[in-house]
Amino acid sequence: MEIITLDQIKQVLPYIDILPQIEEGFREYSKGKVTVPPVGEMILDKGEVHIKYGFVKGEEYYVIKIASGFYGNPDLGLPSGNGLMLLFKQKTGELVSILLDEGYLTDIRTAVAGAIAAKYLAPSKVHKIGIAGTGTQGRLQLLYLKEVVNCREILVWGRKQEKLDAYKSDMEKEGFHVETTLDSSEILKQCNLVVTSTPSKTPVLSRKDLKQGIHITAVGSDTPEKQEVDSLILRDADIVVADSIEQCMVRGEIYKAIEAGVLKKEELLELGNVIAGPARGRTSDQQITIADLTGVAVQDISIATAVHKAVNE
Amino acid sequence: MEIITLDQIKQVLPYIDILPQIEEGFREYSKGKVTVPPVGEMILDKGEVHIKYGFVKGEEYYVIKIASGFYGNPDLGLPSGNGLMLLFKQKTGELVSILLDEGYLTDIRTAVAGAIAAKYLAPSKVHKIGIAGTGTQGRLQLLYLKEVVNCREILVWGRKQEKLDAYKSDMEKEGFHVETTLDSSEILKQCNLVVTSTPSKTPVLSRKDLKQGIHITAVGSDTPEKQEVDSLILRDADIVVADSIEQCMVRGEIYKAIEAGVLKKEELLELGNVIAGPARGRTSDQQITIADLTGVAVQDISIATAVHKAVNE
Repeated sequence: MEIITLDQIKQVLPYIDILPQIEEGFREYSKGKVTVPPVGEMILDKGEVHIKYGFVKGEEYYVIKIASGFYGNPDLGLPSGNGLMLLFKQKTGELVSILLDEGYLTDIRTAVAGAIAAKYLAPSKVHKIGIAGTGTQGRLQLLYLKEVVNCREILVWGRKQEKLDAYKSDMEKEGFHVETTLDSSEILKQCNLVVTSTPSKTPVLSRKDLKQGIHITAVGSDTPEKQEVDSLILRDADIVVADSIEQCMVRGEIYKAIEAGVLKKEELLELGNVIAGPARGRTSDQQITIADLTGVAVQDISIATAVHKAVNE
Repeated sequence: MEIITLDQIKQVLPYIDILPQIEEGFREYSKGKVTVPPVGEMILDKGEVHIKYGFVKGEEYYVIKIASGFYGNPDLGLPSGNGLMLLFKQKTGELVSILLDEGYLTDIRTAVAGAIAAKYLAPSKVHKIGIAGTGTQGRLQLLYLKEVVNCREILVWGRKQEKLDAYKSDMEKEGFHVETTLDSSEILKQCNLVVTSTPSKTPVLSRKDLKQGIHITAVGSDTPEKQEVDSLILRDADIVVADSIEQCMVRGEIYKAIEAGVLKKEELLELGNVIAGPARGRTSDQQITIADLTGVAVQDISIATAVHKAVNE
């Protein structure tokens, strides 16, 4: 049994071509080759814990991932996210690897999923990328979008100017030109590729600001309570993609829109099917597309297995 | 963050008075002070994995426990049970302790729960203890019963004579007098305290052999599929105790009896209420009592916290 520290993970990750591996995971998932039981969830006074787990049938390992968000942690000088991943042998249940990623791999695989969604759904020419949220995920999404989108013009929205300023400063070092706004409607007005990455429980994007030819990836909502996107945007989108249709029926933006009665399960496409077929992604630059990413265990399986292999090469 | 190995666990455990701590856990649970989400379950080709987790409100830690059973492992020279426990801070989600117990603490807390059930439900004079199953749990149940029952006369049932002989040899070294049988009906005929600890999917105890004044603790069934006890025994028992009424509605012997239409939820008592009141345990030596122990996360919380504290004292 090995223990892989966060430092080791950060050392090997740049040498792993992770996007195609997570794409492959989504493909396998949509083909029904991945067993993913319902997400385990625990709500505490100060935070929440998610347990995601599963396995690709016939492969070597199963993975159990624990990730937590304690949103008051930054006031204590601690990161809000935390967690670890565990890799076990499918044939014997033996524990093979403890990846002490402290939530880092969850952040990465979420950002990679955002890049995958953009790869298949963004309009052919992105003139400005809008980011809602100035946290870790708002940064990582941009870094991984670099791999699939040429645009380096950014508009970032947040609730606090000091956090917007810090975001601008950090992301300009990464080669982006960043404007900031305290008015979330500007994102839809100005951008044609938008990523929302907040823990909001009320929509930050409104239907009235929606324009043709935009793609939105919503990554912040992963519970039945959270919502970043006006359900009417899902109603009026040409294509609505779920990372997992099953999971999006009980959590995230799609859940909210279905609960509101403005979206039907039959209208949904699943990301793995968009990647591999038979479903099709964007077919014209006029379409409005949205991807709801609630985070599927198959992403954790893919990234944990890849890191384990890289450390042992 | 600390890592506690199985060796360390085995070193400190004899110095922990674990029975009252798990009793306290059950009491808190039945008072509604423990949050225990539904058990996570994953079924693989060669085995099954259970994730049990939760926290006592207002205490310091939450616990996530992973335990697996791969029943073909002994043929590979590996133990069938495996797993680990994880202790996190309730206030921040920080990982405090990884207990690499390999399933051992699950075995122990299960055996302790059996002793607790016997303490409150066994007839006042036990003349012979019947054990169904010759595995790890069949042994541990006996070792922990020692703390609450004076009887040292044992009848053990199993399907293979060589395993019965090994059980007899091992348990006689622990101060018991052990008889063996290949006929499971003998257990109900001869004993007035019975523990079933098999992974059977068909009953090993039959209603026709049931006599007055017996207590049965069923610990083997922890899924909707497994069953060791004829549902008619639950129908005809004077007292049916669940370790968790909520959990026993979806797994274990009680689930089977309710599904068969011979038992109602309203007839159930919960172990924590039997320990603390308001529910009452056995009130006469003529009663037939049965406890269905499916294993509740509060036991894992109690034992993981106790071991963590003992290691750090």
